[in-house]
Amino acid sequence: MIDLVAPTIHPTVQESIEILAVIAFALSGLAAALRVGMDFVGVCFVAGVSAFGGGTIRDLLLDRRPFFWVEQDHLLWLVILLCFLSSMFIRQSDAELTEKWIQVPDAFGLGLFAALGAQIALIAGSSTIVAILMGVISSTLGGVLRDILCNVVPKVFSDHKPYVTLAVLGSLIVIGLNHSGIVQWVALVVAIGVTTATRLLVLACNISIPIWRP
Amino acid sequence: MIDLVAPTIHPTVQESIEILAVIAFALSGLAAALRVGMDFVGVCFVAGVSAFGGGTIRDLLLDRRPFFWVEQDHLLWLVILLCFLSSMFIRQSDAELTEKWIQVPDAFGLGLFAALGAQIALIAGSSTIVAILMGVISSTLGGVLRDILCNVVPKVFSDHKPYVTLAVLGSLIVIGLNHSGIVQWVALVVAIGVTTATRLLVLACNISIPIWRP
Amino acid sequence: MIDLVAPTIHPTVQESIEILAVIAFALSGLAAALRVGMDFVGVCFVAGVSAFGGGTIRDLLLDRRPFFWVEQDHLLWLVILLCFLSSMFIRQSDAELTEKWIQVPDAFGLGLFAALGAQIALIAGSSTIVAILMGVISSTLGGVLRDILCNVVPKVFSDHKPYVTLAVLGSLIVIGLNHSGIVQWVALVVAIGVTTATRLLVLACNISIPIWRP
Repeated sequence: MIDLVAPTIHPTVQESIEILAVIAFALSGLAAALRVGMDFVGVCFVAGVSAFGGGTIRDLLLDRRPFFWVEQDHLLWLVILLCFLSSMFIRQSDAELTEKWIQVPDAFGLGLFAALGAQIALIAGSSTIVAILMGVISSTLGGVLRDILCNVVPKVFSDHKPYVTLAVLGSLIVIGLNHSGIVQWVALVVAIGVTTATRLLVLACNISIPIWRP
Repeated sequence: MIDLVAPTIHPTVQESIEILAVIAFALSGLAAALRVGMDFVGVCFVAGVSAFGGGTIRDLLLDRRPFFWVEQDHLLWLVILLCFLSSMFIRQSDAELTEKWIQVPDAFGLGLFAALGAQIALIAGSSTIVAILMGVISSTLGGVLRDILCNVVPKVFSDHKPYVTLAVLGSLIVIGLNHSGIVQWVALVVAIGVTTATRLLVLACNISIPIWRP
Repeated sequence: MIDLVAPTIHPTVQESIEILAVIAFALSGLAAALRVGMDFVGVCFVAGVSAFGGGTIRDLLLDRRPFFWVEQDHLLWLVILLCFLSSMFIRQSDAELTEKWIQVPDAFGLGLFAALGAQIALIAGSSTIVAILMGVISSTLGGVLRDILCNVVPKVFSDHKPYVTLAVLGSLIVIGLNHSGIVQWVALVVAIGVTTATRLLVLACNISIPIWRP
């Protein structure tokens, strides 16, 4: 299987996905931290953990060094800049009004990191189940850590809407398209598009997954 | 000291212990997640973190790669299967009735992972105190992460019954028997038996450890 | 930049800082765990996580092995001894009276670990922003984990007093003085002194940082 996979990700493709995903999750972390009344430093911290948490745990588990944010430390500056700009333009009261501020960027981060995580794991030689797991870990653990830091039960486990399921879906698309021999960046774009669009649809239509047999 | 220790664990012994420990902790995670009303995906996630969390942190700290669940990725499928079967046979209302559903498998996982963790650390050349710590980390952090994900104060720190103490006991038995030159699997079985049996006894008789001087 | 930095930290200086920082954070963890009514084992666990958590995550992220507490496992014994002595001399009711029991040693740990973390990162060849981040991570994550284990919103994010800001300050002093070519231990002592003294002043005068634009 590994032979079918491109030996690496095109650096520009990887960097573009990472920048977008980091911005998306940083915004969701920023909004979540504002809602619980943290100060500027707390907001930066939670935004940073949301943005870098999932990818760092992925890199730790795959033993990839240096971490993506060490190699591209401009991403760290980007998050700080984002928090700084937000501190001038977002009022705390605004943030409280809009749950969407957390959910919409989160949907983009989900699609971006799930596809990238699965692709990176495939290239590192992981088996299918481990590649799926890495897609899930990259795309969900940042949000889980964000919620734990804000002391709420991670939304992912309790809102009964497909989330991890969609991370699995995105990872499966990447894995399937890699086998089909399609150009890598197309595979990634399709997986990201499908995952994010489905998540946004789920949020818009308030679709829930069947809860546990009561 | 390290010279006295067998250079490796018999693969069959290690795999058997790992399978049993993973099942035990996955069941406890599954029951804990059901109690707080998570959906199917949340239950899988918490079951997985409970089952693999402690061992993964042990492997990270000892710098052992690949992780035990990468080497044996059938363990990942096993947890998914377990959650799937449970979703057909356990009603959520059942789970709420029985605290035992968390405590009893947890007692087995405690004994299994404490002994295995200490043994793996000894083989990796750790000192006595680090081997004890690895026994404790392997066997308790899965449960701690489980409780943090469910947003409760980790039971381990607040129920005032011996738990970490028993992980220390199990680790000490492994370390002592390794020095005595006994056959390795006997050492492991004795340590597992004593630790799990003591924990079950503690639960049955409701024995508590002295609380802090009030 | 890296050429300007001493190739290593003087072992005695590093060990002295580590011992003091571990004692400081262990005391803060011990007091925090007592306040939520944990038993002896829980207190040891939380004290240990507070004392070793930040430094361990720093070492993981910088890929430094062995961990500082594996290399110097007497630090583990020290924390156990500290908890044991405290169990004889501190009454739980005393601890409840004094928030200071958490805050004052915490201020010392903050200064000590921030300076040491930044220095270690510089020596490992990190860029300025990563060195600052390592100073922050070393000095704050132990306390964050302590608060998560005790199931409270990490104090660091919610008390609106400078804390992470001071870790950034301490790291910047270390980085600046390294560039100035000053003797290393003097740089560390100055950074530790300024950071800890400022934090104590902040606590004494109840200075708060501007909250997010309301």
